[in-house]
Amino acid sequence: MKASILCVGTELLFGQIVNTNAAWLSQQLQMAGVDVLYHHVVGDNEGRMRALLAETLAQSDIVVATGGLGPTQDDLTKEIIADVLGAELVLDEKALADIEGFFKRFGNEMTENNRKQAYLPAGCRIYYNEVGTAPGFCLEKDGKAVIALPGPPRELKHLYEKWVRPWLTEKTNASIYNKVLRFYGIGESTLETKLAPVIEGQTDPTVATYAKEGEVSVRVASKRATVEEAAVAVQETIDKIYQIAGKYLYSTEDQELHEVVASRLLACGGTLASAESCTGGMFAERILSVPGMSASYLAGLVTYSNEMKTELLGVPAALIEKHGAVSEEVASAMATGVKARTGADYAVAVTGVAGPDGGSEAKPVGSCWISLAQKGMVITLPFETRDRGRQWNRNIFVLAMLDLLNKALLRQL
Amino acid sequence: MKASILCVGTELLFGQIVNTNAAWLSQQLQMAGVDVLYHHVVGDNEGRMRALLAETLAQSDIVVATGGLGPTQDDLTKEIIADVLGAELVLDEKALADIEGFFKRFGNEMTENNRKQAYLPAGCRIYYNEVGTAPGFCLEKDGKAVIALPGPPRELKHLYEKWVRPWLTEKTNASIYNKVLRFYGIGESTLETKLAPVIEGQTDPTVATYAKEGEVSVRVASKRATVEEAAVAVQETIDKIYQIAGKYLYSTEDQELHEVVASRLLACGGTLASAESCTGGMFAERILSVPGMSASYLAGLVTYSNEMKTELLGVPAALIEKHGAVSEEVASAMATGVKARTGADYAVAVTGVAGPDGGSEAKPVGSCWISLAQKGMVITLPFETRDRGRQWNRNIFVLAMLDLLNKALLRQL
Repeated sequence: MKASILCVGTELLFGQIVNTNAAWLSQQLQMAGVDVLYHHVVGDNEGRMRALLAETLAQSDIVVATGGLGPTQDDLTKEIIADVLGAELVLDEKALADIEGFFKRFGNEMTENNRKQAYLPAGCRIYYNEVGTAPGFCLEKDGKAVIALPGPPRELKHLYEKWVRPWLTEKTNASIYNKVLRFYGIGESTLETKLAPVIEGQTDPTVATYAKEGEVSVRVASKRATVEEAAVAVQETIDKIYQIAGKYLYSTEDQELHEVVASRLLACGGTLASAESCTGGMFAERILSVPGMSASYLAGLVTYSNEMKTELLGVPAALIEKHGAVSEEVASAMATGVKARTGADYAVAVTGVAGPDGGSEAKPVGSCWISLAQKGMVITLPFETRDRGRQWNRNIFVLAMLDLLNKALLRQL
Repeated sequence: MKASILCVGTELLFGQIVNTNAAWLSQQLQMAGVDVLYHHVVGDNEGRMRALLAETLAQSDIVVATGGLGPTQDDLTKEIIADVLGAELVLDEKALADIEGFFKRFGNEMTENNRKQAYLPAGCRIYYNEVGTAPGFCLEKDGKAVIALPGPPRELKHLYEKWVRPWLTEKTNASIYNKVLRFYGIGESTLETKLAPVIEGQTDPTVATYAKEGEVSVRVASKRATVEEAAVAVQETIDKIYQIAGKYLYSTEDQELHEVVASRLLACGGTLASAESCTGGMFAERILSVPGMSASYLAGLVTYSNEMKTELLGVPAALIEKHGAVSEEVASAMATGVKARTGADYAVAVTGVAGPDGGSEAKPVGSCWISLAQKGMVITLPFETRDRGRQWNRNIFVLAMLDLLNKALLRQL
């Protein structure tokens, strides 16, 4: 089966936003065994949208359209789809009630233009939207289908997962199984070279590597007669990968490193505290994005100034004076300080140079000290990344802290 | 002048990489006064590429093609462009010498397939590539131009800036001016309804609204005989918008709310501290993403547990016991507590229910109290967003904190 993705939005053509929806949908369709032929982006222009939709529909079995379903005048996607497929727009009472309820709940008055979103093509399958106002839909004709999803990624993903994925699984009847492995501490090209014996000349399962910021993902996918057969083939390949690069593998379930660490902490009942300088709360924010972490995370301190390191964490001023704020000694004192102040089982700390300013020959931008304190043990390590800007550097520092904590939880230190 | 962007690469259709090139090129073309009609993505498939190029060229004055210029067999972009425009490929000696030099510099042997990259369409303008092996080029015919750039963003940007930008500036002679306004505290549909008198029936300047998480952007753009004229027209429209919705407008320079707040703080020399519960460090992380904030931000405390609120911020245990951790009283005590502990001029605090668990009828998921303490004044406000998931809620809470701080800095409280 062949699909094309048609994204509608002037903000895409202006380059105001990057088209992450197309990439995400491509991954999903690929996983469902659907080939993606094209991504097209068109603005809120009726003539061009109409022509492109008609043409794309002629080339593909499925067109996934995104964006342009909202309440405003330049939201035209639904009208054009209905027109090209020869369907009337009719008011759906449940959709209208949903939208009215959305406004009522917040005590806001619903502007008249919002009613527009409750008109949907006759005969379509409506994707009621619990997480936004614009419903999506699927309209089929002559063995082809047009799927319309709202542009905001959260709504698009929700509606895809709830409505499109099960529909596609049934339609393609594909017996596909795949797993995404996550690696930390090894670069993409090095990992790919190591995995060459598993990757080369193999058509099923397929093994593909993807670089993320400071990490690498590997997708192992198989399409067989049954899902069970595919799962066995995938597992065999994962076993081979594990033998080659197991020490860098931290998840076989496509989890983020902070999710892995959070579940380990919650599982063992350990408590956590953190003290951050250059990462400015990013470690705390990341680990606390996991629901339920209040059971484990006690407190975090973001101590930017030297005075606050002394005042709030008890780092001796003389120590900072002697070694500098970015030093092994201060990192250790921050970790032990926050552990003492909070009584946590595990305490992590970081002090470093995130940039763009503040670097020196001895302490360049992109370098930091990370420290982990646990009962009877403090481990402090230097860490350096090639400077690629403040946010990049901070993120890499946080990954290093998470990796250190993960190893502590695995008793690998 | 009208342009389309044609990106070639199976890795885009697989969703392995996000198409940042299309967004970047769009911004550049837009700024040069060129309208972008389409983004197209196609895989390494000869038939589909040829058809799409011919069609795109018929619709546009300029086609910018990216990717598929490399040494391998599935790199077909150049061959197809030459064929569609009826040009021969001829060996360029300088391009070949560049490629050979590139390999020599790194002590690597040049594989034979790399010679392919030195064959370029007869009559094209060659964009010699100092930062990679594949040169780009511009081939003109019948008043139309096809520009081919390599796919790696670093090479693409380098060749665009060196060769394409000056060529375009000369060619378009356009005088464009645009501004992006940022709004907080008003929804997209409400804002559009309010701005209808300015938006409707107006062709220049154009006014377009875009929703972001918890915010709205409005782009005002004009194309006139001179940049000065366009700037005057844009400013007149901004003045009208300001009269209608000025109280929600926080930036006319497309800045984020945290950037606006950070520059205000740095400008007035005020110091800041924060105490966060449900947002888990996200406020600190956000404001500290701005370089140079170490001059203003003293410290932040992430106090998740009740004990830590008492221990680290001095919130009386009896107060938490009486009113609950999510209450006006505790939010105020957190703000005054962190102000006292750090000596900051401004202190913000938040306590709320980010979800997914922990909500109740009285304190539903998505509700919080935010507080701001400054000299002689503490302001504490309830805030509620429709629950759209933990990360969404936390982000909305942080925006509310930033808005409160912004109003304090503007002396609007």
